[in-house]
Amino acid sequence: MTVKQLSLPELVDACAESGVPGVGLWREPVRSYGVGAAAKLVRDAGLAVTTLCRGGFLTATDPDERARSLDDNREAVDEAAALGTDTLVLVSGGLPAGSKDLHGARERIADALGELAPYAAERGVRLAIEPLHPMFAADRCVVSTLAQALDLAERFPADQVGVTVDTYHIWWDDTAPRQIARAGAGGRIHTFQLADWVTPLPEGVLNGRGQLGDGAVDLREWRGYVEAAGYSGPIEVELFNDGLWARDGREVLAETVARFVAHAL
Amino acid sequence: MTVKQLSLPELVDACAESGVPGVGLWREPVRSYGVGAAAKLVRDAGLAVTTLCRGGFLTATDPDERARSLDDNREAVDEAAALGTDTLVLVSGGLPAGSKDLHGARERIADALGELAPYAAERGVRLAIEPLHPMFAADRCVVSTLAQALDLAERFPADQVGVTVDTYHIWWDDTAPRQIARAGAGGRIHTFQLADWVTPLPEGVLNGRGQLGDGAVDLREWRGYVEAAGYSGPIEVELFNDGLWARDGREVLAETVARFVAHAL
Repeated sequence: MTVKQLSLPELVDACAESGVPGVGLWREPVRSYGVGAAAKLVRDAGLAVTTLCRGGFLTATDPDERARSLDDNREAVDEAAALGTDTLVLVSGGLPAGSKDLHGARERIADALGELAPYAAERGVRLAIEPLHPMFAADRCVVSTLAQALDLAERFPADQVGVTVDTYHIWWDDTAPRQIARAGAGGRIHTFQLADWVTPLPEGVLNGRGQLGDGAVDLREWRGYVEAAGYSGPIEVELFNDGLWARDGREVLAETVARFVAHAL
Repeated sequence: MTVKQLSLPELVDACAESGVPGVGLWREPVRSYGVGAAAKLVRDAGLAVTTLCRGGFLTATDPDERARSLDDNREAVDEAAALGTDTLVLVSGGLPAGSKDLHGARERIADALGELAPYAAERGVRLAIEPLHPMFAADRCVVSTLAQALDLAERFPADQVGVTVDTYHIWWDDTAPRQIARAGAGGRIHTFQLADWVTPLPEGVLNGRGQLGDGAVDLREWRGYVEAAGYSGPIEVELFNDGLWARDGREVLAETVARFVAHAL
């Protein structure tokens, strides 16, 4: 998503050019390209698929909507398996229209995980609940903290449900370091993502993530927390940023690699 | 601030007209009008000043800037005392330019409170630390949760330093109800403010607070938490909202009273 202006073949080439060994893919471009074709493309290039983003949106109260969401998540699991990644990132979903019931929405996520986790496990895919910044709690993700994500995940086996640790969403939270330790001790850090926090936030706040090093987040410190918790998997950089998307994708990728080395290694 | 389009005399009239018995004032209009004159105006109208907003911005590392901030906060205390309110709301301040050190910034707030709290107490004024929504952590307030605010406040006597509970900032936080109980048990709920959460957020995210009943917050539930914690003081409605500010202030005040009755009582 950081370089969504690149087509999948361009992305694969650019990763090779920049020395990037793995990539988190998003469902929409994969489906447009064709899941099988995308899987072959990355496999032939020797590029690892670190995660598939994203499943989720599991908070509907309407039975039909809920059934469609579960079907869609099973498809996402199938796509993840086809791409050869073991991790599907979940953005849990916001409040249904008119609802003020955060607790109920979180419980519906738990119910949905109960259906999806075994299905995913049979296909070698783990679900990674991503807490999103509290500014998304109403309209995108009612899971706002690592503690909430772990409270959900821990109802299931660790090899079925874990969490996504993304610095953009948790950097403000002084309790997050000990939640990372909790997640690590339980084997539930399923992926680790970096983005920086910059202000002012744009209208709608979705596409204002900062390039590494531009903002308030001590990326190296957070890498230290996940590594101290035993995480040794891939580190993803996920930037939703209109400014970066308007530029040449290869240049953005090369810059991001340089920023990663300067600010996170 | 909810009806900042009204001058202080207009505000006083509109409160009388709408049956509003008390008002939280902001420093800027009070200083423009004259502190003594403003105090006389509200006193003569029989209108209580519930709080003065706001002191704070205590995170500077530069010694001169820090000294200026402390001076300014002492002035704010003096103004609160002159207005006859016992509560000064504090917005703690964001990260200094280029800093990524949230912990250090929070400790500088504690140091500043150590200087300001006795000064305020001598004048009959309590300091009320307001946690702001985590989306403000970088540029406005490094205190993002009630737990963080209480961790700071509890270093001081309860009649000197407490917290502001504002639904807009904490509604997403499933640990906030027990932090309200903690605050109430310690006698540290110094004011309670209402605003609703609506999306999409506007650019800069400051002026997007929702009119009561328009959004995702169960206001009655939160009023229940503070009352169960022993709070029986004023309830303030604080809406930063460009749409409301563009309308007739008396009409907005009357609407807000009606919304309060419909959604919070």
